[in-house]
Amino acid sequence: MNGADSVVKTLMLSGIDVCFANPGTSEMALVAALDRTPGMHCVLGLFEGVVTGAADGYARMAEKPAATLLHCGPGLANGLANLHNAKRAKSPIVNIVGDHATYHKAFNAPLTADVEAVAQPFSNWVRTARSAPTVGNDTALTIEAANSWPGQVATLVVPADVAWTDGASVREIAPAAAPNPVPDKTIDRIISILKTGEPTALVLAGAATLEPGLRHADKVAKATSAHLLGQVFNARVSRGKHLPHITPIPYPIDKALSALAQYKHIILVGADLPVAFFAYPGQPSSLVSEDCELTVLADANENVVAALEAVANAFADTSTAPDDPQPMPTPATGDLTPDAIALSVGALLPDGAIVADESLTSGRNLFSLTRNAAPHDWLQLTGGAIGIGIPLATGAAVACPNRRVICLQADGSAMYTPQGLWTQAREKLNVTTVIYANNAYAILRQELANLGFNNPGRNASDMMDLGRPNLDWVHLANGMGVDARRVTTAEDFNNVFRASLANDGPFLIEAVIC
Amino acid sequence: MNGADSVVKTLMLSGIDVCFANPGTSEMALVAALDRTPGMHCVLGLFEGVVTGAADGYARMAEKPAATLLHCGPGLANGLANLHNAKRAKSPIVNIVGDHATYHKAFNAPLTADVEAVAQPFSNWVRTARSAPTVGNDTALTIEAANSWPGQVATLVVPADVAWTDGASVREIAPAAAPNPVPDKTIDRIISILKTGEPTALVLAGAATLEPGLRHADKVAKATSAHLLGQVFNARVSRGKHLPHITPIPYPIDKALSALAQYKHIILVGADLPVAFFAYPGQPSSLVSEDCELTVLADANENVVAALEAVANAFADTSTAPDDPQPMPTPATGDLTPDAIALSVGALLPDGAIVADESLTSGRNLFSLTRNAAPHDWLQLTGGAIGIGIPLATGAAVACPNRRVICLQADGSAMYTPQGLWTQAREKLNVTTVIYANNAYAILRQELANLGFNNPGRNASDMMDLGRPNLDWVHLANGMGVDARRVTTAEDFNNVFRASLANDGPFLIEAVIC
Repeated sequence: MNGADSVVKTLMLSGIDVCFANPGTSEMALVAALDRTPGMHCVLGLFEGVVTGAADGYARMAEKPAATLLHCGPGLANGLANLHNAKRAKSPIVNIVGDHATYHKAFNAPLTADVEAVAQPFSNWVRTARSAPTVGNDTALTIEAANSWPGQVATLVVPADVAWTDGASVREIAPAAAPNPVPDKTIDRIISILKTGEPTALVLAGAATLEPGLRHADKVAKATSAHLLGQVFNARVSRGKHLPHITPIPYPIDKALSALAQYKHIILVGADLPVAFFAYPGQPSSLVSEDCELTVLADANENVVAALEAVANAFADTSTAPDDPQPMPTPATGDLTPDAIALSVGALLPDGAIVADESLTSGRNLFSLTRNAAPHDWLQLTGGAIGIGIPLATGAAVACPNRRVICLQADGSAMYTPQGLWTQAREKLNVTTVIYANNAYAILRQELANLGFNNPGRNASDMMDLGRPNLDWVHLANGMGVDARRVTTAEDFNNVFRASLANDGPFLIEAVIC
Repeated sequence: MNGADSVVKTLMLSGIDVCFANPGTSEMALVAALDRTPGMHCVLGLFEGVVTGAADGYARMAEKPAATLLHCGPGLANGLANLHNAKRAKSPIVNIVGDHATYHKAFNAPLTADVEAVAQPFSNWVRTARSAPTVGNDTALTIEAANSWPGQVATLVVPADVAWTDGASVREIAPAAAPNPVPDKTIDRIISILKTGEPTALVLAGAATLEPGLRHADKVAKATSAHLLGQVFNARVSRGKHLPHITPIPYPIDKALSALAQYKHIILVGADLPVAFFAYPGQPSSLVSEDCELTVLADANENVVAALEAVANAFADTSTAPDDPQPMPTPATGDLTPDAIALSVGALLPDGAIVADESLTSGRNLFSLTRNAAPHDWLQLTGGAIGIGIPLATGAAVACPNRRVICLQADGSAMYTPQGLWTQAREKLNVTTVIYANNAYAILRQELANLGFNNPGRNASDMMDLGRPNLDWVHLANGMGVDARRVTTAEDFNNVFRASLANDGPFLIEAVIC
């Protein structure tokens, strides 16, 4: 078997049977090997940011890695921004990058680049295969690295001659290591903090925001009056009226500071230090005030769910009834505001839906207004690198073909990776994309005002305004084979959104918001 | 003045008055500074690959750098593939990348990345500004680096607090250094080779492919029977029936090897070593056979034009008549084949046109079939990183608003940076884009066959075929505010192409080729 076959067979042997791909000439032996492997589902992206973002969405929902297939340094470069988001989401990805033949690199052909150096800033782990006999082991090591708890972006560079040369072999990968246990003394310390009764927030992330973790955290919250927070953007949150609700830390610096000012204790449960998304003159970088005690229950690589359970077991079960028994939301009527869309999405979301949320400014109230919706999962822009919404939805839909995916997508950000719509059409994925069409980088208008700059002139306006001409998302979607409709009222939105859920395949709604 | 003002004032002082931009929050002080500078033309790209590719196209035609403005590590990452092409084109670019405030980096906010490490593989020169008082000097150094002959990608990282802090200053930049002279003994050696009368090719690149260099080279060729070749892909070639013609080295390895096999001497004039674009099993990496002598007249950083002139002066002027007095081409009729498009483009190209060529497989005969067209410049995909055609055309049109730009664009490659069409509409640029719609990565089909793999199955076909669904380029263009038409015959093509030249602003032709 040649090197390419050993790469593909090692993937299959480890249970990786989806490959998001945008290959080039140097990957042809790998393409031929994929072609010889009928159990492998190859999903073409027409741009590499779609490939890596889809691999992230797949991993978050499948809870296992997909493989990618990218072309040399520049092809990898096009996928880096969404690898950044995946790395921040702690998603496992087996990121395979083809390269020139080993002996060809020294000739400095036009596409030559230092692929390892390109991969390094946005990978947790990087390796270059050196020969056909060793590339099977390299692939196994890459998969093992990707599977390190809770998940890593592991990049394997495969030179063309390594792929096309015979003499390769396959080995089984080691079982994924369990997350590290949290020491008892840490758990005891957290319990004693919680027993003070002082104002306390738990910031949940990783496995803590899925159902089992949330239920343990909820028991703690009910017994101690601690609040349950999420990070500003979260990799995946299990949500719906049957589940306890977590409140993400707000994105705007002033709101974030005031949201956290009330606490004497902030306890991190798999979460990063709460910090300002960006720095602002005269504002702190850390969101935790000096008179607040910051404690870590569990790092991301520790067993956050077991730690939460151990803490919860220290408290009596104070309630079994769901909290906030609010009525199901009802769809909005009238003006098509961002909040109207939130109310309607919350009311109409089908059971088991997956929401890919890159709504940004238009979605500030989305999380709270959809908290009593039917059970669903919510995926967000973990790394702040815009252009993940459409790819994330695409990958989630590949992972969960029987669940409807709703992509809530800001228009400016959608333009970074619109090519994902074509993959949705090619794969007949059940994705409803809602474009918040405000024809602006609305977030930048706010940020410029935050700098005290309220009356932008021509140059600044030109860089924040997406008008002249307005984007036409119905045309764009149709151009990539996706049916679409423009709506301007809440009633229209409700009708078109409902219809999209009733039909198989992708659909796009251009929501002209006011 | 704050740091941002000193950056922008230093750009203006050095004659850089175009900024291709896709800014984010950390660049708001720079946006405000640009806003205070009315002479600065800010051109928004909706994706960073458009920004960097346009800066490349601008530099190739304006023969001076534009600035870019990009957002943090991931924003820079999205622009890297076209920086790769620019670096290979030796285009000067002042690549400005905002970043988190210096003190904020340690907090590892979501968008944090090692921006210098991201820039390094695709920049010739990288520097991070450390403080407001020094950023003016850093900017001047960056411009000086970009202006190093023949041109470099110079990246300046500007942390947000460096931009917003007062106490900055401006200095004038040093005049651009002249290219190094070629030593007399090198010129003498080349003259003696040429006087042998043995089969010889000059491979021209850089300034050697513009009119003065071509005329000197032509004098040499006429006097010695040496052939004039170009690289596979060339940064900019002056062309038309009034000028000597150069023949690019073919892309396919077999054709490239046989094209060069006839020579006893290959002389590089600003060109790189002729090498295979990719490695293939059993094929050499170097295109130069062992019994051919490879000699360098001038490196890219040397004065290639003066060197050619000095060589030409050693030979008598053997002819003043233009060679190949062929008739003007006439537009094609009948089937809309790639060659029909080439003939029609050659016949209809307006005087002074600029061609941005990313036609790939569809354009293999373009160069020869358009050699007798009206005077024009021809720009190509120098680095092999597809997705530069539309951005390159955009930047060239900004540089030369009074010349028509023709973008000859393969469909698969167009999908990497289609967002450039919106910038063409926003800026009302005179660009006619011709999409070669074959709904395939045709180049990959050939490359797979080159590996002896002629009957691809489902997985391989899925990765080379852009159908199911076909892309609709009229819809895509309309979605970004660009008028468009689909044509299926040569006559239709001629009519629509002619009409596009007669009207201001961008237009797209989806050429369904057979």
